Amino acid sequence: MTDESQLQLNCPLPNTNTGKIRLGHGSGGKMSLQLIQEIFIPQFDCGSLSQYQDAAIAPFDQKQLVMSTDSYVVSPIFFPGGNIGSLSIHGTINDLCMRGAKPLYIAISFIIEEGFSIDQLKEIVQSAASAAKDAGVQIIAGDTKVVERKAADKLFISTTGVGCLYKDSTLCGIDRARHGDAVIVSGDIGCHGMAIMCARNNFELESQIQSDSTSLKEMVQELLLADLDIHAMHDITRGGLATCLNEIAQSSKTAIDIEDEKIPISNQVRGACEILGLDPLFVACEGRLIAIVPQSSCDKVLDIMHKYSYSREACVIGEVTDQKVRVNLKTTIGSRRILDMLSGEQLPRIC
Amino acid sequence: MTDESQLQLNCPLPNTNTGKIRLGHGSGGKMSLQLIQEIFIPQFDCGSLSQYQDAAIAPFDQKQLVMSTDSYVVSPIFFPGGNIGSLSIHGTINDLCMRGAKPLYIAISFIIEEGFSIDQLKEIVQSAASAAKDAGVQIIAGDTKVVERKAADKLFISTTGVGCLYKDSTLCGIDRARHGDAVIVSGDIGCHGMAIMCARNNFELESQIQSDSTSLKEMVQELLLADLDIHAMHDITRGGLATCLNEIAQSSKTAIDIEDEKIPISNQVRGACEILGLDPLFVACEGRLIAIVPQSSCDKVLDIMHKYSYSREACVIGEVTDQKVRVNLKTTIGSRRILDMLSGEQLPRIC
Repeated sequence: MTDESQLQLNCPLPNTNTGKIRLGHGSGGKMSLQLIQEIFIPQFDCGSLSQYQDAAIAPFDQKQLVMSTDSYVVSPIFFPGGNIGSLSIHGTINDLCMRGAKPLYIAISFIIEEGFSIDQLKEIVQSAASAAKDAGVQIIAGDTKVVERKAADKLFISTTGVGCLYKDSTLCGIDRARHGDAVIVSGDIGCHGMAIMCARNNFELESQIQSDSTSLKEMVQELLLADLDIHAMHDITRGGLATCLNEIAQSSKTAIDIEDEKIPISNQVRGACEILGLDPLFVACEGRLIAIVPQSSCDKVLDIMHKYSYSREACVIGEVTDQKVRVNLKTTIGSRRILDMLSGEQLPRIC
Repeated sequence: MTDESQLQLNCPLPNTNTGKIRLGHGSGGKMSLQLIQEIFIPQFDCGSLSQYQDAAIAPFDQKQLVMSTDSYVVSPIFFPGGNIGSLSIHGTINDLCMRGAKPLYIAISFIIEEGFSIDQLKEIVQSAASAAKDAGVQIIAGDTKVVERKAADKLFISTTGVGCLYKDSTLCGIDRARHGDAVIVSGDIGCHGMAIMCARNNFELESQIQSDSTSLKEMVQELLLADLDIHAMHDITRGGLATCLNEIAQSSKTAIDIEDEKIPISNQVRGACEILGLDPLFVACEGRLIAIVPQSSCDKVLDIMHKYSYSREACVIGEVTDQKVRVNLKTTIGSRRILDMLSGEQLPRIC
């Protein structure tokens, strides 16, 4: 499994022992982790291949092949800044990039509800195709299934990507954060999640929040080819920044200290989160990453990130320490608190 | 796209110009073909990579990589002879095998309805894992999404497989049938489809029909390593034998003549089809293939097939001719009729 497993469940979970799947099992947070650890890992564990990362690495002939899969069930399927088609391509491309891979091929599979609009399908397919084309990735395999009305909610997409390492020596993974490393976030967080929430609830804000859904390939490629010794990259998706930092801390067996006031959050996202009572640190992005890099590479990494529109706001938000495994947040008023993983389900069907 | 495209729509389709997706668009027959040709191919066509086969072949480093994807929406999810978990692995393994590939890795993705039984999920995951293990294939990547009650019907699975050619020289594809070739079917047809239909409708027959869902990897591997110059292989899934033969005929620009009385069909399947008014030639299998081989290799191919329990009944059912592109069926009473592709939807959600 390439998911966020092998991680610890630090505090007691809400009672999930009902024998039934709950929405929280798909949140990307603690309940997802529990499901993966209890159900999937015991069956699918393939030794060294199970590294619980954004993508798996496995030998192929003399080379390493990188593979990642995701299903997309986002609701609504069209949202400001994208739709389920472009999202499904961006997400899979980014997962491959996080392991230091050049994305090459994507297989895409559609599950469609009977009665779905063919025009909307065309638009979604077109968005997926142009997202792939923009990133130089080929969609080479596909499948379509149709189910009866009410057996699926409009349309779901599954994408699987395959890539090769830019350099065979690249070792980039969420288990490689080291004491002293800088923690960089590539841009303002929470736009995707809040764009979905606002679209779903027909919120009318002064200016519409646009999803940050985008391919990070170009920027990551430049970083990797620049030989900057990136230790870890993790795209900030389900569970948001807080959950992703916890995954890195736990996989790497390190602590991560971050400072609240350094985290880039737009006023729009902050405002919408306040209205809805959500914490932006747990809201998903689809075009933002955390990079863990040695201090010596930090300026060069930021210089490269700042060249790309989607990472113009990249900045250091904290550092890796050798304290007890956890994520510490220094708040604006100077106090410190432990930032835990997402528990339960905050925003269902965000991707 | 790896689906049955680039094929001709020989006769007028039922009016699908309603602007809405219909169940028939997922049938694997003419309406699926129309959807693929009109919506997917114009966007996703990647030149030489689009070969409209069971799996795509693309360069990876110095080698060829074979990739295939499928979503599984079978209903019911448990059926005699398997469940959606084992089916999702067998189907993807078989698709890779059809292109002459050794299946190596699978990525699996689950979409689960809130409230689904965790025990049933365990059973499905276990079946998928043991199907993969039996075939020597590793499941290296996964994803889980959960949607609200009634936003999906219980559980859907998407699997994507990656493999490498047994021999780089292998050229096996549904466009390679040649005049004079023998047409072999590897066993009795229609068991999977009729097992699903009977399970869905609670039919009580004297003896239960078991799905033929199985991995064909071992048998195909032996065939490929024996250097028998297999021209084409095609697993008989959606649309059944008739549709699959049409796909081969059209891709290869040949005619295929088959004889009704040579086609292996069990009495159980024949009986159930009669009761339900279905033609077994259009009923899906999940563990049977068509092989198109030169006459000179025919006996050797059959000898190998007969070694495996699932292809013990393999036999020649006809031959490839250089007549007008189509499939001709010689009936038991000596007459001939054209056997067309499946039109519309005969058995929804069979896989």
